[in-house]
Amino acid sequence: MLSRLRTTFKSRKGSTIVRPDYDKLNTSNLPDKFVYSRPSFLNIDDDSLGSDHSVRAILTPLDLTALPWSSGYAECVNGGKSRYNEDQAAASQFYLTCRQQTPNGSVTNNNRPKSPSSQYSEVMVTYMGIFDGHAGTGAALTASHLLETHLQEKLTEVRESLLELGDGEIVTSLYPAITADSLIIGAMEAAFCSLDEQMARERTTYAIRGGCTSLVAMFLLDTLYVANAGDCRAILHVNDDIIPMSRELCPGAEMLRLQTMAFSNPSLLHNEFSNRAFSRRVWKEDLGKKVLCREPMSQGWVYREVTSDDIRSPLIRGEGKKSRLMDTIGVSRCLGDHDLLVFGTDIRIKPFLIPNPEVKTFNFNKMSLTEDDVLIMGSDGLWDVMSNEDAVRIVKAVLQKHTAQDPLRYTIAAKALVAHSRGMVTEKGWRMDDDEDASFDDITAFVIPLHHTVKKIGTRL
Amino acid sequence: MLSRLRTTFKSRKGSTIVRPDYDKLNTSNLPDKFVYSRPSFLNIDDDSLGSDHSVRAILTPLDLTALPWSSGYAECVNGGKSRYNEDQAAASQFYLTCRQQTPNGSVTNNNRPKSPSSQYSEVMVTYMGIFDGHAGTGAALTASHLLETHLQEKLTEVRESLLELGDGEIVTSLYPAITADSLIIGAMEAAFCSLDEQMARERTTYAIRGGCTSLVAMFLLDTLYVANAGDCRAILHVNDDIIPMSRELCPGAEMLRLQTMAFSNPSLLHNEFSNRAFSRRVWKEDLGKKVLCREPMSQGWVYREVTSDDIRSPLIRGEGKKSRLMDTIGVSRCLGDHDLLVFGTDIRIKPFLIPNPEVKTFNFNKMSLTEDDVLIMGSDGLWDVMSNEDAVRIVKAVLQKHTAQDPLRYTIAAKALVAHSRGMVTEKGWRMDDDEDASFDDITAFVIPLHHTVKKIGTRL
Repeated sequence: MLSRLRTTFKSRKGSTIVRPDYDKLNTSNLPDKFVYSRPSFLNIDDDSLGSDHSVRAILTPLDLTALPWSSGYAECVNGGKSRYNEDQAAASQFYLTCRQQTPNGSVTNNNRPKSPSSQYSEVMVTYMGIFDGHAGTGAALTASHLLETHLQEKLTEVRESLLELGDGEIVTSLYPAITADSLIIGAMEAAFCSLDEQMARERTTYAIRGGCTSLVAMFLLDTLYVANAGDCRAILHVNDDIIPMSRELCPGAEMLRLQTMAFSNPSLLHNEFSNRAFSRRVWKEDLGKKVLCREPMSQGWVYREVTSDDIRSPLIRGEGKKSRLMDTIGVSRCLGDHDLLVFGTDIRIKPFLIPNPEVKTFNFNKMSLTEDDVLIMGSDGLWDVMSNEDAVRIVKAVLQKHTAQDPLRYTIAAKALVAHSRGMVTEKGWRMDDDEDASFDDITAFVIPLHHTVKKIGTRL
Repeated sequence: MLSRLRTTFKSRKGSTIVRPDYDKLNTSNLPDKFVYSRPSFLNIDDDSLGSDHSVRAILTPLDLTALPWSSGYAECVNGGKSRYNEDQAAASQFYLTCRQQTPNGSVTNNNRPKSPSSQYSEVMVTYMGIFDGHAGTGAALTASHLLETHLQEKLTEVRESLLELGDGEIVTSLYPAITADSLIIGAMEAAFCSLDEQMARERTTYAIRGGCTSLVAMFLLDTLYVANAGDCRAILHVNDDIIPMSRELCPGAEMLRLQTMAFSNPSLLHNEFSNRAFSRRVWKEDLGKKVLCREPMSQGWVYREVTSDDIRSPLIRGEGKKSRLMDTIGVSRCLGDHDLLVFGTDIRIKPFLIPNPEVKTFNFNKMSLTEDDVLIMGSDGLWDVMSNEDAVRIVKAVLQKHTAQDPLRYTIAAKALVAHSRGMVTEKGWRMDDDEDASFDDITAFVIPLHHTVKKIGTRL
């Protein structure tokens, strides 16, 4: 638990939490929910491997069958901001039972079955996720171990309403407005929320430390679902296009939601924070002066006569990726953090930090995909110093050097991504090729090939 | 005040309020804030003109100099859903004093002045607005008379921070993040909010009945600012492209904000409404059954075991344009409505109905605009039966028939728009050319030529 020290670390980029403080932090007598380890698909006996902050070794799976579709994965630990690698990851494939349209079953024009002549089929679900922990490893570990279970449970609850047509498409016989996609999206959302509830419930039994952002990709027949709660990022590289599959959910990006919460229930501000953002910090000396201010639920700036209510910290400070909620946290959605307090106070931040992910879908139906089309996923440590274009350039360069038949190509691509953002250690610290500061954060990357989704390899038992 | 009767009217489209009920409705002893009249630029002596619901005469200004740039305007009354035309409109030009960069004043690369060597210049502001009232004419009348004053006041508050560069551009010498645009947007937002506060304050002195949506276009040198609070719509037709300048702010479109308010402060639901939306109405008989449900802040659907809390009306019912907030109102932002209640209850809806507009900007700098490039603005009565493409097609057809020199062309275009949506009266009621139901609502349209903005005619005193 080095979190308290974090303010002393270099935090120009990539520090999600500035000054964490947790209620009832004295949970040292509670057992850990999960013992610290690296993802099982890395198959590492000694988890201290890769924890050397001066080396920052890049770890990849030795067994290429450990990940679905020989997907690429690589990770490295931070430059010293916390003892452990607080990023975690998970990957698996499982089967979902759907009803299946039989050859005799007639289907109406709008794809809704006329008759119940359906059998069951097992549809393969491919699942990969990144969980970026902060202020401890507990929440990220818990999510990497348990989110899949919650997701399977929630998918099972809707499976009777899902009907596989046999051509890679899943539909539903429910109301026209309720699509199969909206049931699957609902299952992903519910999985995030129920895992967060479990963490809340079990935190008196186990030490589930900190919180974590979560980015989950789920492939189901022809469709990719990306659920994101936090500041990890997923992009598709398809037919030479870059398609963002998530957006960074940080306080600056979620201003409207956060300000609306405080506007609707000002007690959440505890008379310590203001729902107004001034162009500069205002002090007692400014009382009665006119200072530029952005009111809640506004895009523009106005001059406002400073009142005593205004001499408070802004609920959201700063813009974009550097924004902070209650001066504490740089993300606006995450799992865990149930006891996160504003440093030195008893003000809880969790009411603002919802676990609900934003889910984006992409359908590959009828697309012609090659072995060079990929989904790239990374923790914020990767993206802090890398643009989408950089990432695609790096991955493309690796894939061009390695034939489509080379099962190692995605692993090498993931390693190249992590290597780029980690840089090399110099006398000035970790630097990238262009001598700019490298990422000091934990770094995780997946490079997932997409051509399997249309070839339908392994979609059916 | 025919509002109570509205449920008996045909309300397939265009009915903003379903069952209005107002607290302290017995304000008949209070004087009107403004006596009912049509917009002054129509120069109509007899305001009953155009109030014949069986004729629905289309009114246009007789004096083409009454509107800036010979802009086109047309209106017609509803088909009988209320006695008066509840749409109102306003148009004017006024001057804003900005500092002006002198020829000697040096400007740095990022357009921020190095030296204070500036004089003052008068910059012309062109202002046009549509105010679509509901449940009475009071709020729309008040907004059409007073919003301009509030806007001038708020613009004046920031004028010292605005610097006109002499080439049609306005910048500011403030922090880089605070642009001139963000000050002007802030002024528009503040104008909407302070007018709404005035309505709240004065409603014990005057009878300011109902509420109104507001759509305001403001041209300031090379830039167009469109502020929208409600379900009116503005589109640009520029170089044969259609560019939406607003989005309909109805409950379905603002689900996240409305659900967040109720989530953060459940007392706003008064134990009468539920923040969950079920796929069908749930009753006592459903207790314990699993019914498809959309949780707040979720996109997808899940099965939920119905509890007694769920047997309530949903906060938002229906989708898109047909959605209703608390079973009452079809917009999510408006001015007025401070005493609007859910029918037959004492539940106030106003906390959800914010006056803040969404502001969109468009810069014409360096564009080559012709006399056929226009901004089209309309109340929802226009758009209920007309697509953006229809509107552009109709306007283009008129402009092709009338030379660029014909000052009547924009008026004729506006009239054609209103005529299209109003249709003709038949034995089956008001029908459009294709025999579909015409708009039964009040209809208002502006067609505003844009070439003046780059020619800079009248931009300086």
